[in-house]
Amino acid sequence: MTNVNERLAWRYATKKYDATKTVPAEKLERIVEAVRLAPTSSGLQPFELFVVSNPEVRARIRAAAWDQAQVTDCSHLLVFAAWDDITTERVNMMFDLTNEVRGFRNEGWENYRQKLLGIVAGRGTEANYQAAARQAYIGLGVALIAAAFEEVDATPMEGFDPAAVDEILDLNARHLRSVVIVPLGYRAAGGDWLVNLKKVRRSRENFVTDII
Amino acid sequence: MTNVNERLAWRYATKKYDATKTVPAEKLERIVEAVRLAPTSSGLQPFELFVVSNPEVRARIRAAAWDQAQVTDCSHLLVFAAWDDITTERVNMMFDLTNEVRGFRNEGWENYRQKLLGIVAGRGTEANYQAAARQAYIGLGVALIAAAFEEVDATPMEGFDPAAVDEILDLNARHLRSVVIVPLGYRAAGGDWLVNLKKVRRSRENFVTDII
Repeated sequence: MTNVNERLAWRYATKKYDATKTVPAEKLERIVEAVRLAPTSSGLQPFELFVVSNPEVRARIRAAAWDQAQVTDCSHLLVFAAWDDITTERVNMMFDLTNEVRGFRNEGWENYRQKLLGIVAGRGTEANYQAAARQAYIGLGVALIAAAFEEVDATPMEGFDPAAVDEILDLNARHLRSVVIVPLGYRAAGGDWLVNLKKVRRSRENFVTDII
Repeated sequence: MTNVNERLAWRYATKKYDATKTVPAEKLERIVEAVRLAPTSSGLQPFELFVVSNPEVRARIRAAAWDQAQVTDCSHLLVFAAWDDITTERVNMMFDLTNEVRGFRNEGWENYRQKLLGIVAGRGTEANYQAAARQAYIGLGVALIAAAFEEVDATPMEGFDPAAVDEILDLNARHLRSVVIVPLGYRAAGGDWLVNLKKVRRSRENFVTDII
């Protein structure tokens, strides 16, 4: 069995992409599918995924991302966009979908729907957005591992102006907000200052506490 | 190569654990190591991982988690605890560690340190905590895949009182805040209402937008 940790050790935040190389469609689809399958709190999937290959759109996003070249040199750019609020309509959409897929209504599930509707109505838009954004980061973690299994390089990037990217992708109209972007492609190792540097993580002792 | 998506399809939010089964140490360590290797923004790793096997501590956490039995029936309980703030000391700790591991100081990296110190000082404690919490969810996504590759069941859970769990684990003293907990163990399929139900996800069409 291919080792998850070996794949995590292989990957790194690629700084320089080979702009001549394209991720094959079947690999891209498996990465996208992994994000779609990612678990989320109460199964809400409170985010959407944009797969940007259009060069003009990527050039505009690059301008909103400190001019980082990975945005345009990569093969495809993923944009994770969280729900700007967790509304009654959105909760009902997912609970109704669940009933439809499973083919039955269940009292416990319906009680949970009402409980969740109360929670999201009570905590307000900003807290709901923050909760949705966290879920998008589950999708991010899944995407990075899925890419590594496909031997596709990836660069998780928060260094961009979310409001500008929202405008470029017209996310406000869809009640979404961009939270993180991920160039996907193939490293140009010769021009990448990071590729040969050691991965830095705190030791187990400084990261993990065992309560035995 | 074992397929990430097959593993994502296999996993589910386990509702009933077999309390007689224990996750072997080597499997647990590989899952913990995956979380430690998970990528984070600027490499800060702004969270810590608690691995709780102690029965009394887990009983107290269960009481703070709507009495959900998975907390005590599972083999080990993971608690993801985010930094309550991203302080100058913490940023410097990680940048200094990077210099130590890589064996040199680099002007670009030191300029980036100063830039990041300015950002975290400017946005304040609450925004820093929210940013740290998001990073913990990358670790969560990684943990769930790593567990699935080990054929270990897992249940991501936000349904608990974070302040109570913070007190049980004395997280305030360490300037941490609990954000999500994950029982790990083995499903008791006979008693689990969810195990045989279909996984529900929005269709690709309702989740993904291609910008070509």
